Amino acid sequence: MKLATLRTADGTRAVRLDGERLVDLGYADLGELFAQADWQDRAATASGTTYPAEGADFAPVVPNPSKVVCVGHNYTNHIKEMGRDLPDFPTLFPKFADTLLGANDDIVKPAETDALDWEVELAVVIGSQVRRADEQQAADAIAGFTVMNDISVRDWQFRTIEWTQGKIWEATTPVGPYVVTPDEVGGVRPALEVRTVVDGQVVQQDDTGTLLFDPVFLVQYISTVITLRPGDIIATGTPAGVGNARDPKVFLLPGQSVVTEITGLGACANKVVGA
Amino acid sequence: MKLATLRTADGTRAVRLDGERLVDLGYADLGELFAQADWQDRAATASGTTYPAEGADFAPVVPNPSKVVCVGHNYTNHIKEMGRDLPDFPTLFPKFADTLLGANDDIVKPAETDALDWEVELAVVIGSQVRRADEQQAADAIAGFTVMNDISVRDWQFRTIEWTQGKIWEATTPVGPYVVTPDEVGGVRPALEVRTVVDGQVVQQDDTGTLLFDPVFLVQYISTVITLRPGDIIATGTPAGVGNARDPKVFLLPGQSVVTEITGLGACANKVVGA
Repeated sequence: MKLATLRTADGTRAVRLDGERLVDLGYADLGELFAQADWQDRAATASGTTYPAEGADFAPVVPNPSKVVCVGHNYTNHIKEMGRDLPDFPTLFPKFADTLLGANDDIVKPAETDALDWEVELAVVIGSQVRRADEQQAADAIAGFTVMNDISVRDWQFRTIEWTQGKIWEATTPVGPYVVTPDEVGGVRPALEVRTVVDGQVVQQDDTGTLLFDPVFLVQYISTVITLRPGDIIATGTPAGVGNARDPKVFLLPGQSVVTEITGLGACANKVVGA
Repeated sequence: MKLATLRTADGTRAVRLDGERLVDLGYADLGELFAQADWQDRAATASGTTYPAEGADFAPVVPNPSKVVCVGHNYTNHIKEMGRDLPDFPTLFPKFADTLLGANDDIVKPAETDALDWEVELAVVIGSQVRRADEQQAADAIAGFTVMNDISVRDWQFRTIEWTQGKIWEATTPVGPYVVTPDEVGGVRPALEVRTVVDGQVVQQDDTGTLLFDPVFLVQYISTVITLRPGDIIATGTPAGVGNARDPKVFLLPGQSVVTEITGLGACANKVVGA
């Protein structure tokens, strides 16, 4: 299934993609849907109001997750090319619900930065509550996968040793368009091509199968620390090719288009605009 | 006013301390109260069911804030004694709602660590929505102050360069007991004695008047990055004396008591217990 949170004139609605139509699932958003123990049956069988998929106005797949946990340094090729040793543990940092954007929303470059950067990421969306999950529980807790562009404000990110203040900027991080269930992408450790395209030029390209810490491991690891709840989001890290690592550095400017896409999941396609 | 979120047999309730009684304010918690534009009038004038203050079972002052932003390296004396230059910017890191505890709850030491540490902090609770607040707006957005014990899992904190995974452990961080409005503590930049006492021994002691980045500045700074909403919490950093900085290092063990207190605000008093 491909599930989304759609903006309508009457507020957001959880929907399922059926061909060229989006079927209303009876909940305001995917967070509410995933909070139902039998959400898979409900999502598969619901029939009701439909909306056209073409031109859909997507909200963040989960507009109000209780937590968004992101991972750094996770693509094996990228770590090796940087001459680093493979890390023993994932590096974690946060985003907040207010940081998220819909898949096709404009990214407003804050006036306070000229160092707005892209990071395509495979994102895991949680479908059931887990704490200290074992491998099977972690696999079962994965509702599906989506695309995140972990937009980073590099100058603020590196003001101090903690990245948080460069990662949580209001309404900067597209996540969507769909949560795609694992059965459609080869399971809970999918090997999918991931890429970023800026103004038509491919700037990042890799394979999610090369993740050092895979989605199941990350659910286990993070749930050791804190409960993962339905609708929570884990961003699994970005491959080589970010603008900050180029020589000279390249950052996003108003007027540019940035597309982050993962085969089988779709794309976030966003225009950068001035404040 | 001293406001709190009280656990009762019928769920949590927002309350005001009146002498030895807690007066029900008509909301489930302080987050709901602060979401009312005229919360100060409502809190001051409400009369209804009362509960005894003695033996009160406090929830986290705001059980479900949309964000908790914490600050590192903020006590001038501590930075100087470490031989560091004063930083140009605050260091920010997160907690999540699931990380919080009530003021007198037991702190369960996770089985995964033997490096559980204390950090007393003055916490700012937000009372109105602000983005890119100027100085006056930031001052006006401060509902009040409370005590946080920013319990840190040091071995996990230093597994990677990002502190997050040592700072967000489930149900580890007491915050409370009361949100005390600025008028009761000398305004929005209070100079209050802050201390931590472990098993009767004072291990941290300083003055919130020596904060490098004061509460008003922090509201301005963080609201530049992201909207601060009613009920959001900013922890302003801890002074010298944490267990991890001692030689040899000292950590909290089951059976110990840890009291974090700030003159005029009260104390979090917690027992450490085994998992």
